[in-house]
Amino acid sequence: MAIDSTSGSRGQAKPSSSRSERLFGGIYARGEVAACVSDEAWLQAMLDVEAALARASAPAREAAEIAAACRAEFFDLDALAVGTAENASPVVPLVKALRDAVGPDLAAYVHAGATSQDIVDTALMLVARRSCEPLVTVAGRASDAAAALADAHRSTPMFGRTLLQQAVPTSFGLKAAGWMTALDQAAAGVASVELAVQMGGPVGSQSPAVASTVASCLGLGEPVLPWHTDRRRVVQLASALGVLAGACGKVALDVALLSQNEVGEVRERTSGGSSSMPHKRNPVAAVSARACATRVPGLVATMHSAMAEQEHERAAGAWQAEWGTMSDLLALTGSAVAWTAEMLAGLEVDPERMRANLGSTEVDLGAADELIDRALAAHNG
Amino acid sequence: MAIDSTSGSRGQAKPSSSRSERLFGGIYARGEVAACVSDEAWLQAMLDVEAALARASAPAREAAEIAAACRAEFFDLDALAVGTAENASPVVPLVKALRDAVGPDLAAYVHAGATSQDIVDTALMLVARRSCEPLVTVAGRASDAAAALADAHRSTPMFGRTLLQQAVPTSFGLKAAGWMTALDQAAAGVASVELAVQMGGPVGSQSPAVASTVASCLGLGEPVLPWHTDRRRVVQLASALGVLAGACGKVALDVALLSQNEVGEVRERTSGGSSSMPHKRNPVAAVSARACATRVPGLVATMHSAMAEQEHERAAGAWQAEWGTMSDLLALTGSAVAWTAEMLAGLEVDPERMRANLGSTEVDLGAADELIDRALAAHNG
Amino acid sequence: MAIDSTSGSRGQAKPSSSRSERLFGGIYARGEVAACVSDEAWLQAMLDVEAALARASAPAREAAEIAAACRAEFFDLDALAVGTAENASPVVPLVKALRDAVGPDLAAYVHAGATSQDIVDTALMLVARRSCEPLVTVAGRASDAAAALADAHRSTPMFGRTLLQQAVPTSFGLKAAGWMTALDQAAAGVASVELAVQMGGPVGSQSPAVASTVASCLGLGEPVLPWHTDRRRVVQLASALGVLAGACGKVALDVALLSQNEVGEVRERTSGGSSSMPHKRNPVAAVSARACATRVPGLVATMHSAMAEQEHERAAGAWQAEWGTMSDLLALTGSAVAWTAEMLAGLEVDPERMRANLGSTEVDLGAADELIDRALAAHNG
Amino acid sequence: MAIDSTSGSRGQAKPSSSRSERLFGGIYARGEVAACVSDEAWLQAMLDVEAALARASAPAREAAEIAAACRAEFFDLDALAVGTAENASPVVPLVKALRDAVGPDLAAYVHAGATSQDIVDTALMLVARRSCEPLVTVAGRASDAAAALADAHRSTPMFGRTLLQQAVPTSFGLKAAGWMTALDQAAAGVASVELAVQMGGPVGSQSPAVASTVASCLGLGEPVLPWHTDRRRVVQLASALGVLAGACGKVALDVALLSQNEVGEVRERTSGGSSSMPHKRNPVAAVSARACATRVPGLVATMHSAMAEQEHERAAGAWQAEWGTMSDLLALTGSAVAWTAEMLAGLEVDPERMRANLGSTEVDLGAADELIDRALAAHNG
Repeated sequence: MAIDSTSGSRGQAKPSSSRSERLFGGIYARGEVAACVSDEAWLQAMLDVEAALARASAPAREAAEIAAACRAEFFDLDALAVGTAENASPVVPLVKALRDAVGPDLAAYVHAGATSQDIVDTALMLVARRSCEPLVTVAGRASDAAAALADAHRSTPMFGRTLLQQAVPTSFGLKAAGWMTALDQAAAGVASVELAVQMGGPVGSQSPAVASTVASCLGLGEPVLPWHTDRRRVVQLASALGVLAGACGKVALDVALLSQNEVGEVRERTSGGSSSMPHKRNPVAAVSARACATRVPGLVATMHSAMAEQEHERAAGAWQAEWGTMSDLLALTGSAVAWTAEMLAGLEVDPERMRANLGSTEVDLGAADELIDRALAAHNG
Repeated sequence: MAIDSTSGSRGQAKPSSSRSERLFGGIYARGEVAACVSDEAWLQAMLDVEAALARASAPAREAAEIAAACRAEFFDLDALAVGTAENASPVVPLVKALRDAVGPDLAAYVHAGATSQDIVDTALMLVARRSCEPLVTVAGRASDAAAALADAHRSTPMFGRTLLQQAVPTSFGLKAAGWMTALDQAAAGVASVELAVQMGGPVGSQSPAVASTVASCLGLGEPVLPWHTDRRRVVQLASALGVLAGACGKVALDVALLSQNEVGEVRERTSGGSSSMPHKRNPVAAVSARACATRVPGLVATMHSAMAEQEHERAAGAWQAEWGTMSDLLALTGSAVAWTAEMLAGLEVDPERMRANLGSTEVDLGAADELIDRALAAHNG
Repeated sequence: MAIDSTSGSRGQAKPSSSRSERLFGGIYARGEVAACVSDEAWLQAMLDVEAALARASAPAREAAEIAAACRAEFFDLDALAVGTAENASPVVPLVKALRDAVGPDLAAYVHAGATSQDIVDTALMLVARRSCEPLVTVAGRASDAAAALADAHRSTPMFGRTLLQQAVPTSFGLKAAGWMTALDQAAAGVASVELAVQMGGPVGSQSPAVASTVASCLGLGEPVLPWHTDRRRVVQLASALGVLAGACGKVALDVALLSQNEVGEVRERTSGGSSSMPHKRNPVAAVSARACATRVPGLVATMHSAMAEQEHERAAGAWQAEWGTMSDLLALTGSAVAWTAEMLAGLEVDPERMRANLGSTEVDLGAADELIDRALAAHNG
Repeated sequence: MAIDSTSGSRGQAKPSSSRSERLFGGIYARGEVAACVSDEAWLQAMLDVEAALARASAPAREAAEIAAACRAEFFDLDALAVGTAENASPVVPLVKALRDAVGPDLAAYVHAGATSQDIVDTALMLVARRSCEPLVTVAGRASDAAAALADAHRSTPMFGRTLLQQAVPTSFGLKAAGWMTALDQAAAGVASVELAVQMGGPVGSQSPAVASTVASCLGLGEPVLPWHTDRRRVVQLASALGVLAGACGKVALDVALLSQNEVGEVRERTSGGSSSMPHKRNPVAAVSARACATRVPGLVATMHSAMAEQEHERAAGAWQAEWGTMSDLLALTGSAVAWTAEMLAGLEVDPERMRANLGSTEVDLGAADELIDRALAAHNG
């Protein structure tokens, strides 16, 4: 690869990989999603787009050779990072490196007619899809755990609590059914975001035929128009992730509150320790899910803010702000979901304590049973 | 009404109506939406819910009498505000006032089985629907104006601009088609948010039969479960409004940039003056639309943040934070849309200047024509 | 006033006053601050700036006559709102109306050399100062109430709680001292924000002599340079308000949690009722303070976002977004502080329940006493 | 180290390091700050706190031995991450590993009397100080570059522009002086945030003597009280970073707008290329600075939101959300500053084009010269 990280005027010997990713990753990056937004995952997604574009625009043999070169492990991430800094785009150095890799005869078939944003945006859609698969799967696992609780505890009475005060009785099963339904519908919201190819060329006027072929090659939707500066899809994805993270945060808050010693109605099976108080049994999963969920709304706001600042045919800053923000949104929501699934799968419920907290209150569970049935039917349907 | 604003321990003589609503409302509250989130509109919506609930639960004659009393002009907003402060809920004083109004024989039929949140949440859904009707209509007007520009200027060449630099030619029609598609799809997103009744009783365990009747009476959807602390719907609505405001902000930014004297490619027909520079012709609609759009993402974040803090069966603060936030979101998005519609309807385009800016650049409009046709077909379809 | 609200091309018959200010104002606009950001307060502040500018630039007699005309009650807010919409600035119609009011001989002395932003920005500083006075005073009242609790309960043992689990004993006095210190320091942060005059003329190149005179006339600081597009001061103010609202929110959360029936260690003296559950005693002040505090961080983000979008010598949207945002920030923080002061002044503490919750745990209050003394000394110093 | 990553019930074989840090780090992590918030930097900071605590509480020889063991390279980050996940705290595994490292005789002197939050919060203060040193230095470099432009171009006339329209003339020097002053004051805001030790023990009741010694050992301030759940300092730091990022974003926006081909008044010396349009000269530094600045306000909101949710003596989620957020805030602001410094140091100014854009407009620079002198004096003072 021709980019020399020591000679460029923008050159820093090696871009910082930065940030406390591993140490705090135990909390923020649980589960499988974080790996789906790694450097390697992004790089492979961009290469997958270049390969699909070659298939859509080059002769079959040449396309196959280009596609064979499109493997992340063939590329030097640190060198690409230097080139990214020099051009405010990872695609400029990537295309150069890919052209070098396939040699002069094939170089002209690489990146034909495309602009940097076509590659990054379509790669973002692939990264999103690959991240949302485990994310939605694990959300389903969390919801299944809630469903099991709903069914098992449909007649387990406990206090419903409003404004943090005991109100009137409800059943723990109905509470768990509420968690289940919220998780199901939030996950459905993530799954239903439209993911579409981007292949508009420099200013979005390229024939839709190429976009159509690339879309079908990659299994993505085909937009009416290129969407270089119409960021609806990414903001909708961000918002749907925010809703799912919010649903997880709510469940975790309930678990943390019910786990208070003075309430004592549930407990995480695998609780964590304290560096100073060995007797404590901390609700580690709830705390971690809440930590992740707390970080999400600000990132959602960033995506909404950036949407209004996408001038002309490619934004000078607002677009480039999306990449890291979206990676963080996916990883944090993925982690919140993973913690929630573990928390619910291992939740220990204490019906005796629930009954004791109710005291002599007369128990009328209302339509809890009917509502749980409705909710379970929707969950299973 | 029995609440005496001078005697209550929480009593302030008169709650502040606060805030610079009229002065700056010229910018922030343009169009019809702001009136849909006024005090009177909220109050009427809550009364509509009480009336529907009476119809669902009381004998027909009694229900009719209650419904006849459910008119906002019969109630004293300032007294209600005092009661709201005393209870952190507008429904406690409203129910009391309504019971007083209908007299002791009917009082028991008022608010039967419901909790405050049932009334406020269902009223929020009505307020949202009533706000979104003009909002979506006016967005359609903005989009129609963009469609007319797209059609008229499909072959008007101009520079496409990326990273604020001249890139390669495009057509102004294609640019306008991009605005149109973005507005259409963002408005469709607002229109598709599911609005559902809330009627769960104190802790959400009430029979779904009542909810079902109230829902059909008010033309709202029926949820699987009460959603007192599952705020998906309101957060999705907030997010959809954010996307629409973002789409407006992007169009306004383009117009403001194209209106720069040095670019001079478009101009608002009715430009504003300056207090110090009478010669200036300011892009008032673009500036105002951007001002509104800038205020929206932070409000979206508030709704996402509040979602994760909805503990147990009714949140102690996170729920009450929604009311004003959602009113602001609706009014500001409505204003952004109104400004955008005026801006586009009166946009003066200067094809000569566009051509002059292109200079001797060879003009190839790519597939602009085909893309505009696709986009117009989707718009008209 | 010459502006005719029916003839202008931008004319709406009457701008919407919009939004549910009175009904929910019971929660969101408690205390005195909301009145400091009302339409009338903003209008008077702008007129105060015009009067000071006249004093700085016109002969004494003419200045006095202009100043005498600068009273908010002489102006028609709705007409000004129409003019605001026509110009994206409230100053254009205000200057016109003021010139009409003082007559042709004095008109030339009105607004001499100033630009709209000079007036609005300096008015914002006045509005901020006038709002922060009651805000800081009431924060002091809240802090005094916490100080009284700290002193009275310095040896009242209770469980310290970490991660929502009982940890080891502390004293309620130390907890209250923490509230006190947080409120004191957050209020000091608000009080220390530098409020400076803005008087730069159309593009900020006006002689600083005028600014200096206006500043001393209004009791504001004098900046190194005009700050039309350097929004540090307003963002610092917004952030300081955010910190104070956050401090209130934390205290209210503690009170709400300690008020849970299962904990029962404190209670608000004046608790609110429920529309469906008359037996409940809701922590109304804590709920309301939290509702206000929840709304603040998104508004802080808006101010930060707008700061980076202030292009050239006056921003086309990002500046105009500040006015309503800052009004909301002041009113909501003021309300959070008012609720917190009432909550703490009327807090009922239950030392027996605290002791009972501790059970047989051995009580070692550590250095609580020493720490409380330190904190009270800082509070009183 | 005793923690076995394969056997723990919480064990994932290896926590994901996650996220596209290197690839996009070219944009988001420029300069020296990113390395100051790396895993290694955080780990070393925590170890520095443990060493200081040992010096404050253990006999001298034992303290020296413990301090000698407190080097990041002796620890296994991935194993610590596993332990972090198991306990929602990096300190639990770190203390265990450190005790293992120093052996049973010294183990009791490790972490004496401290709680996890003491270590992490004090480490955060160290990380902040170590990050802010290069950050403020580089901001000074950016400001010096602006000062040089202000001085060199004090009489270079150009159009002042308001609402994106040409207004009246100003000098480029005055514009650059505005950048300089904004950067200076924003950096001073970062430098003035009070950084204080945290050493309160499990519930904040520990004797302030230990805190005092640790503070002086580490060169940190000594707080009135432990601040486990009074997050003023970290939120003030976040806000000050937001202001500095906002100042950078504003400068970058000006540069990007002035670099438009149609304006052409400035140009970055080292512009970047395009993957599809080799003729383009993109303002890479401005774009990158804006991308970083766009990401900051949402993170500031997260810190403000988390402040209000810090219940009791240690928050169950809101505290743990801070670590990654603060790391990102420091790295992104550091990167924005680095890009701004490079952009200004290499800015090419075109006075002829400025003059040509002014046309025949009469040039009156007002008090530009006087203002520039004032501003330079403040800069140099």
